[in-house]
Amino acid sequence: MGEQIERLQVGIVGASGYGGVQLVRLLQDHPAIEIAYLGGDSSAGKNFADLYPHLAHVVNLPIEPIDVATIASRCQVVFLALPNGLACEIAPQLLAKGCSVLDLSADYRFADLDVYTQWYKIPRTDRETAAMAVYGLPELYRAKLANAKIVGCPGCYPTASLLALSPLLKQGLIDTNTAIIDAKSGTSGGGRQAKTHLLLAEADNNFTAYSVAGHRHTPEIEQICSDLASHEVKVQFTPHLIPMVRGILSTVYATIRDPGLVTEDLIVIYKAFYRSSPFVKILDGGVYPQTKWAAGTNLCYIGVEVDPRTGRVIVMSAIDNLIKGQAGQAIQCLNAMMGWDETLGLPQMSFYP
Amino acid sequence: MGEQIERLQVGIVGASGYGGVQLVRLLQDHPAIEIAYLGGDSSAGKNFADLYPHLAHVVNLPIEPIDVATIASRCQVVFLALPNGLACEIAPQLLAKGCSVLDLSADYRFADLDVYTQWYKIPRTDRETAAMAVYGLPELYRAKLANAKIVGCPGCYPTASLLALSPLLKQGLIDTNTAIIDAKSGTSGGGRQAKTHLLLAEADNNFTAYSVAGHRHTPEIEQICSDLASHEVKVQFTPHLIPMVRGILSTVYATIRDPGLVTEDLIVIYKAFYRSSPFVKILDGGVYPQTKWAAGTNLCYIGVEVDPRTGRVIVMSAIDNLIKGQAGQAIQCLNAMMGWDETLGLPQMSFYP
Amino acid sequence: MGEQIERLQVGIVGASGYGGVQLVRLLQDHPAIEIAYLGGDSSAGKNFADLYPHLAHVVNLPIEPIDVATIASRCQVVFLALPNGLACEIAPQLLAKGCSVLDLSADYRFADLDVYTQWYKIPRTDRETAAMAVYGLPELYRAKLANAKIVGCPGCYPTASLLALSPLLKQGLIDTNTAIIDAKSGTSGGGRQAKTHLLLAEADNNFTAYSVAGHRHTPEIEQICSDLASHEVKVQFTPHLIPMVRGILSTVYATIRDPGLVTEDLIVIYKAFYRSSPFVKILDGGVYPQTKWAAGTNLCYIGVEVDPRTGRVIVMSAIDNLIKGQAGQAIQCLNAMMGWDETLGLPQMSFYP
Amino acid sequence: MGEQIERLQVGIVGASGYGGVQLVRLLQDHPAIEIAYLGGDSSAGKNFADLYPHLAHVVNLPIEPIDVATIASRCQVVFLALPNGLACEIAPQLLAKGCSVLDLSADYRFADLDVYTQWYKIPRTDRETAAMAVYGLPELYRAKLANAKIVGCPGCYPTASLLALSPLLKQGLIDTNTAIIDAKSGTSGGGRQAKTHLLLAEADNNFTAYSVAGHRHTPEIEQICSDLASHEVKVQFTPHLIPMVRGILSTVYATIRDPGLVTEDLIVIYKAFYRSSPFVKILDGGVYPQTKWAAGTNLCYIGVEVDPRTGRVIVMSAIDNLIKGQAGQAIQCLNAMMGWDETLGLPQMSFYP
Repeated sequence: MGEQIERLQVGIVGASGYGGVQLVRLLQDHPAIEIAYLGGDSSAGKNFADLYPHLAHVVNLPIEPIDVATIASRCQVVFLALPNGLACEIAPQLLAKGCSVLDLSADYRFADLDVYTQWYKIPRTDRETAAMAVYGLPELYRAKLANAKIVGCPGCYPTASLLALSPLLKQGLIDTNTAIIDAKSGTSGGGRQAKTHLLLAEADNNFTAYSVAGHRHTPEIEQICSDLASHEVKVQFTPHLIPMVRGILSTVYATIRDPGLVTEDLIVIYKAFYRSSPFVKILDGGVYPQTKWAAGTNLCYIGVEVDPRTGRVIVMSAIDNLIKGQAGQAIQCLNAMMGWDETLGLPQMSFYP
Repeated sequence: MGEQIERLQVGIVGASGYGGVQLVRLLQDHPAIEIAYLGGDSSAGKNFADLYPHLAHVVNLPIEPIDVATIASRCQVVFLALPNGLACEIAPQLLAKGCSVLDLSADYRFADLDVYTQWYKIPRTDRETAAMAVYGLPELYRAKLANAKIVGCPGCYPTASLLALSPLLKQGLIDTNTAIIDAKSGTSGGGRQAKTHLLLAEADNNFTAYSVAGHRHTPEIEQICSDLASHEVKVQFTPHLIPMVRGILSTVYATIRDPGLVTEDLIVIYKAFYRSSPFVKILDGGVYPQTKWAAGTNLCYIGVEVDPRTGRVIVMSAIDNLIKGQAGQAIQCLNAMMGWDETLGLPQMSFYP
Repeated sequence: MGEQIERLQVGIVGASGYGGVQLVRLLQDHPAIEIAYLGGDSSAGKNFADLYPHLAHVVNLPIEPIDVATIASRCQVVFLALPNGLACEIAPQLLAKGCSVLDLSADYRFADLDVYTQWYKIPRTDRETAAMAVYGLPELYRAKLANAKIVGCPGCYPTASLLALSPLLKQGLIDTNTAIIDAKSGTSGGGRQAKTHLLLAEADNNFTAYSVAGHRHTPEIEQICSDLASHEVKVQFTPHLIPMVRGILSTVYATIRDPGLVTEDLIVIYKAFYRSSPFVKILDGGVYPQTKWAAGTNLCYIGVEVDPRTGRVIVMSAIDNLIKGQAGQAIQCLNAMMGWDETLGLPQMSFYP
Repeated sequence: MGEQIERLQVGIVGASGYGGVQLVRLLQDHPAIEIAYLGGDSSAGKNFADLYPHLAHVVNLPIEPIDVATIASRCQVVFLALPNGLACEIAPQLLAKGCSVLDLSADYRFADLDVYTQWYKIPRTDRETAAMAVYGLPELYRAKLANAKIVGCPGCYPTASLLALSPLLKQGLIDTNTAIIDAKSGTSGGGRQAKTHLLLAEADNNFTAYSVAGHRHTPEIEQICSDLASHEVKVQFTPHLIPMVRGILSTVYATIRDPGLVTEDLIVIYKAFYRSSPFVKILDGGVYPQTKWAAGTNLCYIGVEVDPRTGRVIVMSAIDNLIKGQAGQAIQCLNAMMGWDETLGLPQMSFYP
């Protein structure tokens, strides 16, 4: 990269959590980016290396208070890794000062803010900003991202679920009202806040469903499914907690409309659908994705199986919830916004085992 | 138990595997039973305590070669914990010599041996014996077990799945062709044979589906579902591997026929259905079962949730795959056969965490 | 137990934590005991089953505010499972009202309260009560426990470490100043309080030492070692966190004074030393203890190896930190106090795997 | 790397195991290397992607039979990732044909082949080749590696242990006969062969020592310690199995000769000793290494603590056993051999958590 004159100056607001530390690590390795600002609330005043001593040799930056003027004076692009309801307070100001914004929270994922408020119980007034936001799933909205100023990066479960469902919905291959998403996630999806049920002593060697029939990723998934299907789609979505750190596996069920379709047909359709998507890997027949394959990468592995006995298709997708499901995808969106190669700076090989 | 004159003499064939060690531990603590024989194939000639040194202080028995005459001379009841296809060779001989048999393999689970042979690829000639066998799920077949001479103990997945589905099927509450079972199991379900994909280095921090649309527990589940519904039922069954030792969680989906039913209605129905089943615990609304709750016990915890948005019911059941899903259930069957309290000698409190 | 007229009435103060839930489960199964009171601070007013729904079928008791008069009116014996510094406030009052007290905290482990205050930074005034307290390691202080009114139950690490070291110290077999204890514990030892470093996402697939050269169990271990050796002993104690729920393994190193001693000699000595201790299991030569063997039991497995190359003995001990290292040991102490069989009501067989 | 004319052509013999897959992944990302050959024994004839489907998009190479002429015709450098006793059969032939060799097994780690044969029970005749071999720990033998034709890459435990001990030995700071190494490793160290005790069901939530007073890494550690101390050193080495995939933590104890030394003194000495070693990170006082920090990287984190109460130093070192403890270190050696920057192509940032 010898002849590169200037790296893009980026800031990360909310640098101390899992989203933040992923962003720092990945952006630190990104050849076209320089981290110009780290911001935090409770962690402000500390050095990033106090929180993550193992990165002291590569990151020597303070965590600063969150101040819009400071951020805008140093950064062209800002990643927001804050709890829901905080990004929508700061994003309009950052945009007004000329920064581009990638938000990792739920705040800018919804076209209809009433749906957001209904599920998140947070009132909203920034309708103008929300209307500008692009849903940050590059595999579906690559073109829109090229011109985005603000991106609402998808939730971890919606990423895995939508990548599994999209070809079926776009091609009209399934009865949409039969779609069931049985999703499973490692506990890092719960963030770095200390919560009793996420203690190793509680969560290890344990497996349970939660938020059954009521998880807030449901309307997010339905919004994009409806967009793809061009009619309203309702899905059944059930998340579960896996006793492990990273990874989501979504097992998706739906009834196929054409009973003549076989597994190999669908594999061909999936490969075609994702031909221009370097991070989506469609597996051969009889091979099913493992979360470990995706760990540490921005990849999504997808396996497809048609059950001729029942007339259903079963689609399985595996991602790293903190990379493709969060920080990596945000960087992929930025690559798309900047017109860079979508894979720039993003890992594509898991270490195994 | 001071005045008890004689304990029932039992044998365990296949004592070295996980089924065997569970049986030994549980039967050792059973107040009406004495272990009179341990048999094995590759482990014959060793002492049981060589394999499981931590039990040396309570079990001091050799593992003997498998010889029907020896077994029958010492045992009134025999547990068979052998790979599929071996029990059907020895069970008829044991019955002929007057022993009762509880088989933990798949050999005596099927009323129709052609179905068995189709899925297990093992030819069978013991039709007479198979016709006598009772399916060992006491919650459904308690009365038949009272007179059984041979019991085909259910698979681990069918146990969890059928306990979740039975009230719905028996009462005709669901469209049976919508039933989907998304099941997840700890790796001990794969037994104590060394297989690469069950190594900790491979399976830890990993999650994957397997045998999608083709697992051999499918016809077993369908046989009992069809019996309960009084018509042929086909289910979608997908097993997954959880990175933990013990436990199964089944998440079952089905469309409710009466859209007016709510969660509380179903909880009442489930509690009534399992009123006489001491090991099945129906949870209150909004509480979902955790596998850790069941670990080390013969319990099955069930949670129910109706989703009014989609018209589906979601039922979750948690068991310990090696106890209620295997050895404990076999002992529960024996208790039923002997007319003893069904809970005799079986653990009902998990240690937590 | 048909003819037993009256069960001992016991109370548990601090019922909501891991110590509490172990006590409840074990005492519930104890044939000579009835739980008459559960007390808590932040959890007061809840039902025990709200915290641990999986025990609702066996425990239906409220958690009550901590009130000495109420406790004393109902209980003959009280278990205190409170944070350090709280037991010493309530224990003298309970004793004054005629209750016997078993304290699971560090408050009554020290003969010299100045040592306690130096390491725990908590001032103390209850010197009279402390002087009455017996150190609750039955394998060493069985006789004293028979007459105890108040017991200071050992810490989890000291239990494992002292059982490994005692025969060596008592017989004068080692250079005491060479004793090094490298101890490892599952994360449940950190309790049920939500702490970031105990989250599964942080602690899983991770291993680290902590409190190096400064852990508060050091002076507790040294006090008992000095008592056994009849001179002051200083040990090197280093705890580590294992990515698992339950269990401690202590690996103890010391230089042997008599270079002629071999492994088999020491095994004989250990077996003799623990001849009357039903929970200590000395393993054969070349067999080393595994924490999984002890999980869920009150057992301590000990393996011994002499290294003729270096002149050292290596002793390994494995316990369940929450049973033999905490709640089970307290009940064992109570059994000793009551003159009951030491094993009454305490589990001796792990479920495996 | 536009102007780079030719990448170094390397081969990997034994590509299917954990050592192989690490090498493939790391070399695939190495900017100066091209993989020209993958060889295997039982896996010959398969495609590498059949074994590791998640790498199919980056590695499309067959696994070929092991044939010296073929290898030498294509490769300038060959990595041998074979079981002990096989490298010594093939290495002399490869050297004779002009290849450089990096061996990951124990075959070329010993200056004295009699010691090798005594501990590994494998007779040896290749004394000439063995005499040429350099011990591949770049932090100690950087200069020798620059001219090496054959490298015996260190074992995983020796790597962690020697990096912890070297400054103490080199500076004469400790009584060498007091050195005790209590080491703990994730189960991937046992390789990808299916062994019962490495099954998740056995090893998870379990912790045990093994090969106490007799592990074959002991003489390897002692050989290098003796070299550093300039006199014969005997160490006590005890390995343990951690219920996790990757990582070694070594906790090293030794008595300090100068009682005036404090923790900060030693940190200064360690930092100076490793000033030119980019992969060794000396932590600040009171900070102790965590294996998770090193996972996926070629780093070694070291923490030091002096205990003034006992006069001992405790040194803790954390590495990824498959990277710095195996494949990464071999590549680091190759970088040293080629005169490249030692860090070329090697990861320096763990993903966390």
